[in-house]
Order: sequence, then C-alpha cells, then structure tokens
Amino acid sequence: MDLKQYIRGIPDFPKPGILFRDITPLLSDPGAFSQAIKEMSSPYIDKRIQYVAAVEARGFMFGSAIAYVLNAGFIPLRKKGKLPHQTMAAAYGLEYGQDSIEVHTDAIRPGDKVLLVDDLLATGGTMAAACELLEKLEAQISGLSFLIELTDLHGRRRIQSYPLHVVLSY
Amino acid sequence: MDLKQYIRGIPDFPKPGILFRDITPLLSDPGAFSQAIKEMSSPYIDKRIQYVAAVEARGFMFGSAIAYVLNAGFIPLRKKGKLPHQTMAAAYGLEYGQDSIEVHTDAIRPGDKVLLVDDLLATGGTMAAACELLEKLEAQISGLSFLIELTDLHGRRRIQSYPLHVVLSY
Repeated sequence: MDLKQYIRGIPDFPKPGILFRDITPLLSDPGAFSQAIKEMSSPYIDKRIQYVAAVEARGFMFGSAIAYVLNAGFIPLRKKGKLPHQTMAAAYGLEYGQDSIEVHTDAIRPGDKVLLVDDLLATGGTMAAACELLEKLEAQISGLSFLIELTDLHGRRRIQSYPLHVVLSY
Repeated sequence: MDLKQYIRGIPDFPKPGILFRDITPLLSDPGAFSQAIKEMSSPYIDKRIQYVAAVEARGFMFGSAIAYVLNAGFIPLRKKGKLPHQTMAAAYGLEYGQDSIEVHTDAIRPGDKVLLVDDLLATGGTMAAACELLEKLEAQISGLSFLIELTDLHGRRRIQSYPLHVVLSY
C-alpha cells in the first residue's frame, strides 16, 4: 500500500503559498492508519522503549497507538497551562513571537528510554524544544519517528544528534 | 489492576474548588494504559465500528490507540480553523462565551458506524456538540466510550440517546 495516496495536498493553507499535507485521509482509512502506525513503530519494536512522547495535538494521533503497539507508556508534551502538576517548559519560535511546551517533571526518571513521535517534521522547531525538555529530565532519547518529512525545510539539522526514522518524504 | 490507583487528584486546578482528575500517571504506566485502552474498546470489538472519533486534544490520547485496536479509521474533531479542507462546525457553551469543534465534511458517509471516545465525561457539553456534528453527517453513532465519568455533573443526560460505556466513575 502506497501511503502517499492517502496524503492530500491542500494549497494555500494555512496561508497563501503553503501546500498543506493533510493526513486526515490516511487517519480515516483503517488499513492505511494501521500500516502507518506499524511503519512508524517497527524500528523500535526490540529497543525496550519505556515511553512514547508526543506533542499536542497532532502528535497524539500517532503517539497513543504507537505507545500501545510498543507496550510503552505515553507522555503528553502539552501547551502552556494544560498540565496540572509541576512542569518544566521549553520555548520555541513561531513566525511572530514564541510559544512553549511543557512536561510533568515526574513523568520521566534519568536514563528512561523515550521515543519521540510526530506526524510531520518541518522546520524542526517544536521537535528541538521537545528534545530539550526530555534532555532536561535526563531521558535517554532512543529515537524520533515521523510519518512525514518535508526535506526542503532541513528540520533534521536541528535534531541531528538523535536517530531519525521517517516513513514518507516530500 | 485497579486503574483508579493511576488517577491523581489535583486540588484547585484549573481554578479554586475544582479537584482535577489527572490521567497522566495512567498514560505513563504501560500496563495501566494498555488495560485502559482494552477496557474502553472491549464492548465494541464485534460491533463493526468503521471510525473512532475523538475531540482535540485529550481525546486523541485514547482515540488513536482505540482505533488501532478496533481496526477502524480515526476521525479528529478539532478546534476551529485547524482542519484544512471543507468543514462543518458545532458550538458548545463555556463558562464565558462559547467555542466550537469542526469535522471534515468528507470524513464520514451517511450510515457509517462511529464510536466516539474521550478521557472524561463531565458536563457533557463537548460530547453533545460532537454528537451533533456526527449526526449532521448522518453517521450512525454506535456508542460513546469514556475512561472516567464525573457522575455528579450529570453529563450523561445530554447524550442519553446513545449507548454509553464508562470504565471509572467518581
């Protein structure tokens, strides 16, 4: 099954000149969704991953199922103010200003093996912030797994110290 | 395994007087997370569910894995402006003003069997809006599955025309 058939290009979203890669047709097809989860998980099956971490909100669409497949726990990295207990934050730049993501400080112990997953690797800003957060907690980042990489944006340069797995490239 | 041991009560979050039910200890424990996914899915294993729908963002943490387990597609119900293609919206009330959730109009065909899942049933406002959206697309709502119900808030009254499954009650 060619998963690219289930990715829809939407011109000029969210603004003129951007071709948005819409993953909802893949999500809604049982065979394509299942295959995507398997392909994102497969390099880590025997890696004793303890936690799968993912960034709100699209990352959760894959992180939950991948954690289930790997028999790992799931750690949500959330936008500011959403997590109720003690948190750590990491900032990342947006086109205008900046935003931040947070993790519970008791989510991970030093040395825990974590896989970070997301739907799309673009500029890598969010993922660099996510890695910074996990490093602050002294996690061992066993790898990063993405459904899609937009290679022209060179996001992998910002996370090059970690093993990277990508299912589809554009 | 008693899943309630993995739910942490956080007093006065997000505001004074509220006891927040924090599910992150359950998510991060592989056995508890896996059991929660199985218990949320089990009544629907033989129900030929075609799609699992969930509301951004906490619903995605369960919806993705449940879709995988049921071999169904996953349909994200998202906050305004996040979905790139043609959408329908349903509004729901907040303490001050209102918000809305959206679905792609081509996500579901009339008669498709959909299971709606979420982490928590509180007042039922968001879930009633989610059901309204799915009804607009003429989906057949086969059931609603929640990890937690806060029974004092009587949210089930707002979704009483559908089969309801709850794993933990407070």
